[in-house]
Amino acid sequence: MSLVIVGTVAFDAIETPFGKTDKIVGGAATFAGLAASYLFPEVKLISVIGEDFGEDNLNILKSRGIQVEGVEIIPGGKSFFWSGKYHNDMNSRDTLITELNVLADFDPKIPASYQDCEYLLLGNLTPAVQMATLDRLENKPKLVVLDTMNFWMDVAMDELREVLKRVDVLTINDAEARQLSGEYSLVKAADKILQMGPKYLIIKKGEHGALLFGEGQIFSAPALPLADVFDPTGAGDSFAGGFIGYLAKLQSINFANMKNAIIFGSALASFCVEKFGTERLENLTQEEISNRIKEFVNLSKFEISE
Amino acid sequence: MSLVIVGTVAFDAIETPFGKTDKIVGGAATFAGLAASYLFPEVKLISVIGEDFGEDNLNILKSRGIQVEGVEIIPGGKSFFWSGKYHNDMNSRDTLITELNVLADFDPKIPASYQDCEYLLLGNLTPAVQMATLDRLENKPKLVVLDTMNFWMDVAMDELREVLKRVDVLTINDAEARQLSGEYSLVKAADKILQMGPKYLIIKKGEHGALLFGEGQIFSAPALPLADVFDPTGAGDSFAGGFIGYLAKLQSINFANMKNAIIFGSALASFCVEKFGTERLENLTQEEISNRIKEFVNLSKFEISE
Repeated sequence: MSLVIVGTVAFDAIETPFGKTDKIVGGAATFAGLAASYLFPEVKLISVIGEDFGEDNLNILKSRGIQVEGVEIIPGGKSFFWSGKYHNDMNSRDTLITELNVLADFDPKIPASYQDCEYLLLGNLTPAVQMATLDRLENKPKLVVLDTMNFWMDVAMDELREVLKRVDVLTINDAEARQLSGEYSLVKAADKILQMGPKYLIIKKGEHGALLFGEGQIFSAPALPLADVFDPTGAGDSFAGGFIGYLAKLQSINFANMKNAIIFGSALASFCVEKFGTERLENLTQEEISNRIKEFVNLSKFEISE
Repeated sequence: MSLVIVGTVAFDAIETPFGKTDKIVGGAATFAGLAASYLFPEVKLISVIGEDFGEDNLNILKSRGIQVEGVEIIPGGKSFFWSGKYHNDMNSRDTLITELNVLADFDPKIPASYQDCEYLLLGNLTPAVQMATLDRLENKPKLVVLDTMNFWMDVAMDELREVLKRVDVLTINDAEARQLSGEYSLVKAADKILQMGPKYLIIKKGEHGALLFGEGQIFSAPALPLADVFDPTGAGDSFAGGFIGYLAKLQSINFANMKNAIIFGSALASFCVEKFGTERLENLTQEEISNRIKEFVNLSKFEISE
């Protein structure tokens, strides 16, 4: 039984008010995989990289026990590269460089050893790749979580809608939920989106936390207020990885467990932003995670006795 | 022992995507007073109105048991009037008309019967009026809550800082917290603001809930996701009124009670926005309030057992 994550494994170069990096390891599947690896042991990635990525960088994943047989290495190819600069508010950023490189022709290959997949995270990629992954799995996973973004709604809405019919959980931000549904009210947006296929919708609101809709219920999860957000890159992916990793560990899918999964995802995301790139997610301890979860509990707990 | 609220009692004319009103009753003290009246019986207002306000409109307050001896009626004067139009997202609005009228010369008078004030809400007004009210109370209240806005930071920052030294709780929104402190991070902003005088800081984030800082702790309160926000006017004032009304009822000020007070304030605000103006706050039942509180509990409750 495994958790399979499809997404980018890539290089990032990041500038924030706190500093600047050269090319460092990034990518949605990287962050999601690292986050999930703290909660569930059998994490398997599907991605594509160039020869430039290098064994040392792959070891960041391998040393967390993440399987990379499905990460195709294109001989002579160059890995996907993204460079961005965050503004002072850390909530907006400019993309400086996007080089698709080997990602342009990404055709996901699923190794035979991945066919035990029961939990599947379709990271933010073109809907065609997400669909191909679903088609190539011999058995329908117990849970399919899909992450996407406004860009795919702009250029591939029809394909995106087809994939949505086959997923259990959709994670998007509030602006994307409004775009996808055409509704400003998030309650109305959720109603419409839940008719498109997903049984659960998670609306990510960054520093304002997240909302979970499903089973006729709503859950509002807090975000941990942080003194410094050092580098927001990968926070959403770490959230998704922590979320599905927790559910894979629990082997039980219902609204109550989804709520806790969101708290674990939020906790992993809160670590991610403390340092540049993957640095903070490379060597967390279970104690650190457990203490962070307690912070979330204390942050939102209240008891009203009338 | 009473709860005294200083603020505007006024006329509003409001346009939202749902409709348009003629002049209807509004004002910060009106909304705060109505909200507080559901939680605490001895609510007393200090304000100024013109002869145009009329007995019928004052009865909206009186019929909720709110005392208006401190609401000065200026013979021949006209009441403060504000007119605004909300955009489709309901989070931004344009002010169409602001007529200060009798508010321009507001000099708060404190009736002898108000000198039993133990809980004081200084509604959003010029800091000079807030200061005069504090000066004219013979005994220091047990709890002083101050609401203000960016406008006073722009035009009267020095006076505002003087008042801040004398209050226990400050309620502002996130943009105002950033403006007042010069810090983008709300954690750092709160640290600085708590050094300016208040022991507690509430940062209101509208549809994203609220944060409470104080006693070295942080509480994140959810906002109830609503299908329709009919008219946001008065939501912040209803929040403040519900907040201080709950603490006045409890007669006990600590972080745990403040958390619950924020939930009650949020619940009252969530009613306020369901109809135009004060309509929804005029005849709530205790059962409706109690059910709404339960919705807040369910919205944010999670239980993690590891």
